[in-house]
Amino acid sequence: MSVEQLVADICRGAKKASRTLASISTDQKNAVLLDLAQALLKNQKEIQAANQGDVEKAREAGLTNAMIDRLTLSDKVIQSMVDGLKEVAALPDPVGEVTSMWKRPNGLLVGKQRIPLGVIGFIYESRPNVTVDAAALCLKSGNTVVLKGGKESLDSNLALTEIIGQVLMDHGLPKACVQAIPTTDRAATSALLAQDETLDVIIPRGGEGLIRFVAENAKMPVLKHYKGVCHVYVDETADHDMALAISVNAKCDRPAVCNAMETLLVNQKEADAFIPRAAKAFTGQGVELRGCPLTCALAPQAKPASEEDWSTEYNDLILSVKVVEDMDAALDHINHYGSQHTEAIVTKDYARSRKFIDQADSSVVLVNASTRFNDGGQLGLGAEIGISTSKLHAFGPMGLSELTTLKFVVFGEGQVRN
Amino acid sequence: MSVEQLVADICRGAKKASRTLASISTDQKNAVLLDLAQALLKNQKEIQAANQGDVEKAREAGLTNAMIDRLTLSDKVIQSMVDGLKEVAALPDPVGEVTSMWKRPNGLLVGKQRIPLGVIGFIYESRPNVTVDAAALCLKSGNTVVLKGGKESLDSNLALTEIIGQVLMDHGLPKACVQAIPTTDRAATSALLAQDETLDVIIPRGGEGLIRFVAENAKMPVLKHYKGVCHVYVDETADHDMALAISVNAKCDRPAVCNAMETLLVNQKEADAFIPRAAKAFTGQGVELRGCPLTCALAPQAKPASEEDWSTEYNDLILSVKVVEDMDAALDHINHYGSQHTEAIVTKDYARSRKFIDQADSSVVLVNASTRFNDGGQLGLGAEIGISTSKLHAFGPMGLSELTTLKFVVFGEGQVRN
Repeated sequence: MSVEQLVADICRGAKKASRTLASISTDQKNAVLLDLAQALLKNQKEIQAANQGDVEKAREAGLTNAMIDRLTLSDKVIQSMVDGLKEVAALPDPVGEVTSMWKRPNGLLVGKQRIPLGVIGFIYESRPNVTVDAAALCLKSGNTVVLKGGKESLDSNLALTEIIGQVLMDHGLPKACVQAIPTTDRAATSALLAQDETLDVIIPRGGEGLIRFVAENAKMPVLKHYKGVCHVYVDETADHDMALAISVNAKCDRPAVCNAMETLLVNQKEADAFIPRAAKAFTGQGVELRGCPLTCALAPQAKPASEEDWSTEYNDLILSVKVVEDMDAALDHINHYGSQHTEAIVTKDYARSRKFIDQADSSVVLVNASTRFNDGGQLGLGAEIGISTSKLHAFGPMGLSELTTLKFVVFGEGQVRN
Repeated sequence: MSVEQLVADICRGAKKASRTLASISTDQKNAVLLDLAQALLKNQKEIQAANQGDVEKAREAGLTNAMIDRLTLSDKVIQSMVDGLKEVAALPDPVGEVTSMWKRPNGLLVGKQRIPLGVIGFIYESRPNVTVDAAALCLKSGNTVVLKGGKESLDSNLALTEIIGQVLMDHGLPKACVQAIPTTDRAATSALLAQDETLDVIIPRGGEGLIRFVAENAKMPVLKHYKGVCHVYVDETADHDMALAISVNAKCDRPAVCNAMETLLVNQKEADAFIPRAAKAFTGQGVELRGCPLTCALAPQAKPASEEDWSTEYNDLILSVKVVEDMDAALDHINHYGSQHTEAIVTKDYARSRKFIDQADSSVVLVNASTRFNDGGQLGLGAEIGISTSKLHAFGPMGLSELTTLKFVVFGEGQVRN
């Protein structure tokens, strides 16, 4: 069978199974998730044996230690998958929720009811634990899923989906609810992106190259985020202690993630006092500073920033710093160089806090809080399947609700239209 | 300038203007809409002169009378545009609405706030009044719009957008908030579909060929519906009078529109009594019947339906009729042949009404009411810009809210992430 036929068959199976999965009870879904948690623990040795094979091939192929670390299903990572399954089981089931209902003058009762999207294609790079996380979120939201993981983790992913399939069948559900594409052939990704008859949406997670490839080639809708060039703006009148705590947290807590701050914007009235103090704190944390001319004058350890710095996601202990004339200049900078991901203002001013909230064109806008809170768990959505920085369907962290849509339901007593 | 450059320039202008439009007040938007209503009346002669040119060219080109009728901006059609503008002005402004807000254990207040999508590309066929309807909905929802109308109505569309631009400028707003592409060159449509840097979404409205072309070629998200193959299912125990009234209304009220019924499904227990009576009523309304073998036996005036009939949108006084064993068979038929548009059940049974609501996989599902209610105005959304039959972002009629998205807003007091 060709790769194209293989992928098409898998997707057709997922489509067929989606009818079944859309209508099972919450109790049944939770039972599957909790049994799967047990099955992972019971089959831990088998999973780790398959994973060991992937790790050895990765070593032979010369992957970096950091990449091998991400690939490894240690006891701790398996426990985190187990905990994740229990957390998703504990979350409310979005399917069937009627989010609003109203009565029309003719007596019709009109409501909007949540339904699954149907079939989700999920493309991700090397972490195999994402296989279980994604399967859990898709199952709980009533969607079947076709998984295309990184080639380095194929055997791990197949071992995990085999266990998931067994648990599904134990509960009388089709194995096709969760499937991994069993090949490292690169043509499988292109084949997957052509299945618009069966896949309702594609969610890519990984590097910018992968995401652009998916966005440009997918025939179906894509939920994606490219990068996080997040800003903290220290406003005129900001409390400097608060501004410093938020900035340092936003940059240094986990510099490699998408919600870390990349650029600090400082109102010119605060620059003289704030920049030397902040520079000292950042340097103490090992952060390399790249500044505008005013910043470099106030913080001699800063190197001059290039034009490119303002739109770079460093994912590292590097920070660009710019002094701005006022909040309008900060907003202009953000909306020009930013990535519509996360922006924070530190201010004591009521009117400017409201204006910043309204005019910063990003998926999450915060007043007096760290950019690091742009995360489904932190914002109270439960687990997340990704963050969207495009506006259609979902903008910001995507939890279970974002894997559903709303249909209209209408209750009548014989009404006809005149 | 090439068509590609022209289109790219127009879209860049729309993007720039979208920053301004996103943050103006509701009062200002309503003032523009109401002044535009006045301006249409004041410039009625000028509009009709431009339209007359389009109509003459259409006659020379041999367009049908029905098409010329759709193209003509009669006094009545202009009045309907004026009324439409007043209606949109009277609708609540979706922008800025906070749809929900919750408190996190660390004290963060997290909410979701409605914002415009940004720039909308709108591609439509020959009705020039849609120019004003679409512009009004986009303006009210804070979006700028790039309009690509049918080639037959170019001069009408340009006359209308010229007046809209004048009113915008009178209010200190950029003319680029509403622009029509001033060419009949077919390359303009392809050029528009490539502007994914500036357009946030494309909404096509017209025949299935146009919509497929847009869906297959657009680089940005598309909100679309292909066709409406809508069903009414007459359940076991249904009230026959109600079932007949709903069926006749669903088929005959306006057979050419997408929410008209195309297939009537009748439970076998009701068929003997219901089908002859319904057939007589439909024949009396001039409806041609195409039936399954059982239907043809019960209603001799029915011709045998072909396999193709079950998935055909007739847009005409033709109806396919099928006797089904039970509701599961009706649901299987709907989910196999339907278009995820609109389905209705007529029933007295509580459990089956709930199951039909849950399992009919369509954007609008009705109990004991006509399919003709799938319409933004009828369901209480106010005016609509179209109906979506794909599930991402919007499913069903799209009103002002569906031209917006939600961003997260977070109010803190200095919180950082640990």
